[in-house]
Amino acid sequence: MADKPLLRVLAGESVWPPPIWLMRQAGRYLPEYREIRAGAGDFIALCTAPKLAAEVTLQPIRRFGFDGAILFSDILMVPWALGHGLRFAEGEGPILPKFLDTPGLSALSLDRLDREVAPILETVSRVAAGLKAEGHDHTALIGFAGSPFTVACYMVEGGGSKDFAETRRLAYADPALFSGLIDLLVEATVRYLSAQVVAGAETVMLFDSWAGVLSPSLFRAHVIRPTASIVAALRSRFPGLRIIGFPRLAGAMLAEYVATTGVDAVAMDTSVDPVRASAELPASVAVQGNLDPMALLAGGEALSEQALSILNATRGRPAIFNLGHGIVPQTPPAHVGALVELVRGA
Amino acid sequence: MADKPLLRVLAGESVWPPPIWLMRQAGRYLPEYREIRAGAGDFIALCTAPKLAAEVTLQPIRRFGFDGAILFSDILMVPWALGHGLRFAEGEGPILPKFLDTPGLSALSLDRLDREVAPILETVSRVAAGLKAEGHDHTALIGFAGSPFTVACYMVEGGGSKDFAETRRLAYADPALFSGLIDLLVEATVRYLSAQVVAGAETVMLFDSWAGVLSPSLFRAHVIRPTASIVAALRSRFPGLRIIGFPRLAGAMLAEYVATTGVDAVAMDTSVDPVRASAELPASVAVQGNLDPMALLAGGEALSEQALSILNATRGRPAIFNLGHGIVPQTPPAHVGALVELVRGA
Repeated sequence: MADKPLLRVLAGESVWPPPIWLMRQAGRYLPEYREIRAGAGDFIALCTAPKLAAEVTLQPIRRFGFDGAILFSDILMVPWALGHGLRFAEGEGPILPKFLDTPGLSALSLDRLDREVAPILETVSRVAAGLKAEGHDHTALIGFAGSPFTVACYMVEGGGSKDFAETRRLAYADPALFSGLIDLLVEATVRYLSAQVVAGAETVMLFDSWAGVLSPSLFRAHVIRPTASIVAALRSRFPGLRIIGFPRLAGAMLAEYVATTGVDAVAMDTSVDPVRASAELPASVAVQGNLDPMALLAGGEALSEQALSILNATRGRPAIFNLGHGIVPQTPPAHVGALVELVRGA
Repeated sequence: MADKPLLRVLAGESVWPPPIWLMRQAGRYLPEYREIRAGAGDFIALCTAPKLAAEVTLQPIRRFGFDGAILFSDILMVPWALGHGLRFAEGEGPILPKFLDTPGLSALSLDRLDREVAPILETVSRVAAGLKAEGHDHTALIGFAGSPFTVACYMVEGGGSKDFAETRRLAYADPALFSGLIDLLVEATVRYLSAQVVAGAETVMLFDSWAGVLSPSLFRAHVIRPTASIVAALRSRFPGLRIIGFPRLAGAMLAEYVATTGVDAVAMDTSVDPVRASAELPASVAVQGNLDPMALLAGGEALSEQALSILNATRGRPAIFNLGHGIVPQTPPAHVGALVELVRGA
């Protein structure tokens, strides 16, 4: 297992050419995914059907031979499993009850979470077995969860938002209540990710998609502090486990996040300058990213130029090639093939 | 005029307590604004009615004695005046034709812009006269425009967007066309802001609300390069003019933006750490910002704590107190009064 290129990089080794995988690599840009999705009922049904979820996790590995296979799931499975309620409306994204309209923390159950995530853990086991059975020996299995702040955003707003203003207002207006929610989500995330590791995940990634909407004081309180707690708890249970953090749009707070959370690797969003990040972040911390999904969609010269500049910027340090945000459904699979070829030929 | 605190700060002087104004200070949180807005027809009608637009510009000055009076207008008046088309649908934000569905650059006319902005320039003159007539001697008149990239975002998408993906795709896929649009908007912005200065604006601010969605290479090409061109053109025509740049969510690119565009001051969005920015940006460049509008909405302890930490961070350097993003309509005017008192008493 330690021979897999992605895990070597996460352990601090510089590997060339760098391992590559793509955020949302199992998804709608693939016809074989759309076929399974169409027959699977709603999105949550697909996430909780181990055989199907494992199948779509493996699809992009078969097609492109990626170095990482990320569990097919959703960052909102934690509130769903806690009993908060969640549904996906066609073309509208996730819809949840608004936290302030619910009975609050007392309605959320960690015991329930432990039970409800069982099918997701079965998916992890099936993917681990599938990678072995199909001979994808260099592909590492990546578990993941949404970070407490990002999950809290959706719970408070009842869905997506431009800037999660109501969440920020609550964090200022009732810090005790908001911190209570974050603390519960820290505990839930530790349980959920621990179970993924036990089921076969070889590394885990924390997605903090909305970290960038926060002022520095809220960022420290609700992104850095909970991430550090999760990392410490996971590491005490699984000493060799490597953890990837993704504080999206953290901007100038990125270095502080890396220095204070204890993550082994940081995923750079599209706006990060990989030259600067490579120079400023400790050489022992791996960087991951950060091609603009729109350059991948455009293809051609823009794709080569952008990909090469990231490769050049991160050469000589532990680095994993990826996008800076999820691949978009309109992306031609041939562009993904061209990117993999370009990175592998670097 | 050089005695006005805001202009002294923009000239590089450290003034204590710092001058204060708020983005969107003329707006829906004020009952006197809502009354005028209700009788003014649509939003564009209000922006092009000099008497009414001047009145709403002056309202917050009368109530709070702000150090800056920003022209009441919209960042999309440039595409409107160029002939691109614009309307505001109730509760939906701006709606424009999509640039790729129009005849393109040939349909946009700089001569038309010069004519169409006449009522906006008359508003500027009226505000200048009103500030004098009403004895607001310490209040500086701020002109503004949207930056070319942000204006281009709305023109390409046909309205707002979560991440302006289509704009980024176009910038990668057809760099010549997109740069042509940016170049035309640079020329339009220079003409428009020059005319505002001639009409009485004492400083100008460039709003690049969506700068943060860009990868570093696109940020350099479409935010830094056009901003530097606008600053150079304005400065050659008005040697004493001070220019405030607002590259929202520029993140780690903020220092490079300041170093390479030539702006005299930079508005910090809510995510910027004012301690770090004060330490890293040249002492000659003023910083402006950056209270979270949600802390202002929450009021009480959160408001005082956040405001005091910004005051402490920027003390001893040229600084203007402001929000990190526009004030929201639900904000109680009493919270604004408390903030002004807190800053003035610092």
